[in-house]
Amino acid sequence: MEKINLSEKLALFSDHWAPRTVTQFNDCDVMVVKVKGEFVWHHHDDTDDFFLVLQGQLTIRMRDREVHLGPGELFVVPKGVEHQPFAEEEVHLLLIEPTGTPNTGDARTAAPRRTLS
Amino acid sequence: MEKINLSEKLALFSDHWAPRTVTQFNDCDVMVVKVKGEFVWHHHDDTDDFFLVLQGQLTIRMRDREVHLGPGELFVVPKGVEHQPFAEEEVHLLLIEPTGTPNTGDARTAAPRRTLS
Repeated sequence: MEKINLSEKLALFSDHWAPRTVTQFNDCDVMVVKVKGEFVWHHHDDTDDFFLVLQGQLTIRMRDREVHLGPGELFVVPKGVEHQPFAEEEVHLLLIEPTGTPNTGDARTAAPRRTLS
Repeated sequence: MEKINLSEKLALFSDHWAPRTVTQFNDCDVMVVKVKGEFVWHHHDDTDDFFLVLQGQLTIRMRDREVHLGPGELFVVPKGVEHQPFAEEEVHLLLIEPTGTPNTGDARTAAPRRTLS
């Protein structure tokens, strides 16, 4: 039950595509992540996918369109919609997903869910 | 399925303590709100309460302590915990709550839930 300073949490790690849980909200993990380059195409059968850009420019490609997000912009990928995040330069994001959701949409290839104290 | 620019949404209204839903995430409303002054003491029996400060300085008083949040800082008030948000000057917030949650913890006194298109 502490406040979370997102910049301080992001300063604690440097690897990409490896979300860190900073707190929980109901049954969801609230996470920060650094991303750069292209992620895998994936979807989540059981949950929407919440992205809020804190720093940098993120593209979220979908099969029929793409959205471009800068700082202070958010996008919710609806459940079941295939998407591929892409960042030319490093981007810092706030993510929210139900606890246990594999980041690739597939538990076999997902990054382990790690917590920052 | 559009991106949400939080500053643009906040520029669309000026009243205080009247959250506007900007999108939904699973069964939750994602809202922006402007606050100033003191809100009522309240709690939510069935949900945690997610606050992310976008602009300004927010105090969240609880019965045994208080937290002070600035831009880029978030706090989750656990389910059932009495709290009173307070802002000396206007603060802009991102809030997330299950759809239908009364902002005062009591449907009789809650602000109507409004949506920004």
